[in-house]
Amino acid sequence: MASVDVPVALLGYGTVGSAVDRLLREQAADIERATGHRLRVVRALVRDPAKERGDAPVTRDFAEIRDDPSIAVVAEVMGGLEPAGGYVLELLHAGKPVVTANKQLVARRGAELFAAAAAGGVQLRFEASVCGAIPVIKVLREALVVSNVHRVLGIVNGTTNFVLTEMERGATYEEALAEAQRLGFAEADPTEDVSGKDAAAKMAILATVAFGSRVTLEDVACEGLERVTDADVAAGHEMGMVVRLVGAATLVDGHVDVRVRPALVDRAHPLAAVEGAFNAVMLQGDAIREITLEGPGAGGLETASAVVADMVTIVGTTGTGFLQNDACWRELPRLPEGEVASPFYVRIEVADRPGVLALVALRLAAQGVSIARLVQHQGEKSATLHIVTHEAPEGRLRAALAEIDSLQETRGKASALPVISDRGVAGLGWK
Amino acid sequence: MASVDVPVALLGYGTVGSAVDRLLREQAADIERATGHRLRVVRALVRDPAKERGDAPVTRDFAEIRDDPSIAVVAEVMGGLEPAGGYVLELLHAGKPVVTANKQLVARRGAELFAAAAAGGVQLRFEASVCGAIPVIKVLREALVVSNVHRVLGIVNGTTNFVLTEMERGATYEEALAEAQRLGFAEADPTEDVSGKDAAAKMAILATVAFGSRVTLEDVACEGLERVTDADVAAGHEMGMVVRLVGAATLVDGHVDVRVRPALVDRAHPLAAVEGAFNAVMLQGDAIREITLEGPGAGGLETASAVVADMVTIVGTTGTGFLQNDACWRELPRLPEGEVASPFYVRIEVADRPGVLALVALRLAAQGVSIARLVQHQGEKSATLHIVTHEAPEGRLRAALAEIDSLQETRGKASALPVISDRGVAGLGWK
Repeated sequence: MASVDVPVALLGYGTVGSAVDRLLREQAADIERATGHRLRVVRALVRDPAKERGDAPVTRDFAEIRDDPSIAVVAEVMGGLEPAGGYVLELLHAGKPVVTANKQLVARRGAELFAAAAAGGVQLRFEASVCGAIPVIKVLREALVVSNVHRVLGIVNGTTNFVLTEMERGATYEEALAEAQRLGFAEADPTEDVSGKDAAAKMAILATVAFGSRVTLEDVACEGLERVTDADVAAGHEMGMVVRLVGAATLVDGHVDVRVRPALVDRAHPLAAVEGAFNAVMLQGDAIREITLEGPGAGGLETASAVVADMVTIVGTTGTGFLQNDACWRELPRLPEGEVASPFYVRIEVADRPGVLALVALRLAAQGVSIARLVQHQGEKSATLHIVTHEAPEGRLRAALAEIDSLQETRGKASALPVISDRGVAGLGWK
Repeated sequence: MASVDVPVALLGYGTVGSAVDRLLREQAADIERATGHRLRVVRALVRDPAKERGDAPVTRDFAEIRDDPSIAVVAEVMGGLEPAGGYVLELLHAGKPVVTANKQLVARRGAELFAAAAAGGVQLRFEASVCGAIPVIKVLREALVVSNVHRVLGIVNGTTNFVLTEMERGATYEEALAEAQRLGFAEADPTEDVSGKDAAAKMAILATVAFGSRVTLEDVACEGLERVTDADVAAGHEMGMVVRLVGAATLVDGHVDVRVRPALVDRAHPLAAVEGAFNAVMLQGDAIREITLEGPGAGGLETASAVVADMVTIVGTTGTGFLQNDACWRELPRLPEGEVASPFYVRIEVADRPGVLALVALRLAAQGVSIARLVQHQGEKSATLHIVTHEAPEGRLRAALAEIDSLQETRGKASALPVISDRGVAGLGWK
């Protein structure tokens, strides 16, 4: 096949944009060898063309990109909802394929963008919007096309994972967060990360692609690290588990449940091995059992490499009908709150009196929550009950805990974390 | 894009072939939604057409498949080197795209097949030939096209990994192997697996694709589980490491080194988390740092799902020049034996006499092998030295150990295993 010179354009020329330009230049021979195409940035939209950017062909005029029929694909690497969203829609309507690295845009307006792409008969690819260089979107859409993926579990925020692994090693939450900020893993204002919102946006995108159903940021139940205590980390350690901020998207009887929250993960589970600022996504499906992808979830070069791979794939598959943009071809209802089931770890401070344990066990049993393991640790004036339950609907557990919290014999509020284990919960114990 | 009925054919209709047929039927709607194509098996080559196979359209005549212009893609799922290899070559020469699940064929005759595909202007895809449902070939060729992958580490044999994880839990090698056979993970004759040969074939394919250079089975240095002892497993446990049969393909200054052998893997390393019969592959490259893929490495349905994904991709990208079949575009020389570097764990039985430790340390130092950690465990009549070295060329270590073995003060032969650790070796210790 003859080599073809392919003009492309960028919206934005910051860390990611300039890295895309550089990769396309430096790896031109590799790309041409693999695909027969030589991609070349002919236009980059920037706000201030006077800024030093080497010999990059910058412009302030979006129309120069939209209306240039020679430009085969455009990468949106400017970020933000607007004007990025408007630009992407205009490009798709104009029949130009788009690659975007914009997590917030895809998580909030994915369905609209996919529809525009389908209407325009062009591809929209967004690998870089989730988990940096980890090719989870490609794997979901292309490799697992017949696998009926019904569950996606992910550690999709590097900052919180770094904080949690530091806490495991003995740091306090504040120390771990300060260290993450010092190393550049966390922003000066870390709210987006520690609240779980960043992870929620990624899980919305993953759920949409995995289940082919529109899931937006608002559909994701989200809890961050606020409630995680040293006692949770210590209890996990005693049971051979680690605390992780886990995103879980589940298809249950035609209903979707997507949530982000702290969980205890069995040390033998692949997600427990994810250390520091890395990300991992586990895909569970009928034909594949489970496939886990792990790697760096952020970084300019990593993100740029995902953008380039998407651009190359678009150029290589245009006009074939391969991967029509139907990522949202159905509208599945959300699973009613409280119906999603999991094993749980529960910690309850109780008065050190005979019969308290039985009272607690009765309240759990009344809601159908069955106890797999129970240990009572003696304190000075009170005792702590550590309980691991068998799988139970979360609503049932919450109802039982509400009753338990109102007992005269309990102190403070019971604390509960979902447990993620490959081996069931029966094997979990205390040292 | 209009839906297109796409006739396809199978060579072989055993476990994998019948599962491919079933997946194409059952998932037809999903495939059509994603790609616009509806794949349908119109011919399956079998040896005995009288055998019960439902309404599968079987034939004994290969020419019926080769010469049918309506057949868009053929999946070779019969296994074996011949006649499978001849059939695949004939199909490619005839301009028919081929998907193969045949590890031995690709590992031994990959370069010849790739050349035939390129000459025929058609695609040859082989995802299912390596690690079952794990889409490592797709990720290497499509997602990491600009990543300059320079190292591939893999646990690519489920049988040996199952045996090693059982040994960690206290089973003997014989017990673990018997259990693997009982569960169907190991053949009655497990030689191919435990000798490392099965893993070597997979590493040859992975190295070829990762480095774009022809690597055949004969180029892979290979050692199986024969030399692994309970003492290795126990020593690993004490140092927070696990024994794994690790395939490693490395690009060093334009030279290729590919080997399979037992290694000690740091518990914090992603490969250490691979339990039981699962496989995992870690890809290290410039733009991506490292990406690890983990999942079931075998199984009829898992393999069939990889075959179907390849068929769908071929049908979706035919005629675009996407992924020209140049997996072997260069001929890199092999790294001279002994030059590949690694940290090592060394165990030496020595006479319990003053000065022996110094003698051993001197021999290592004379070869430039530097000691990171050393512990002496006292036995009844002798002592055992456990040593972890810093990174050293294997040839240097072997030279030092040969001298150490010939010392009067040592008993038996020193035992050495490479160490794989993310954190370097300084942190490894003994409990």
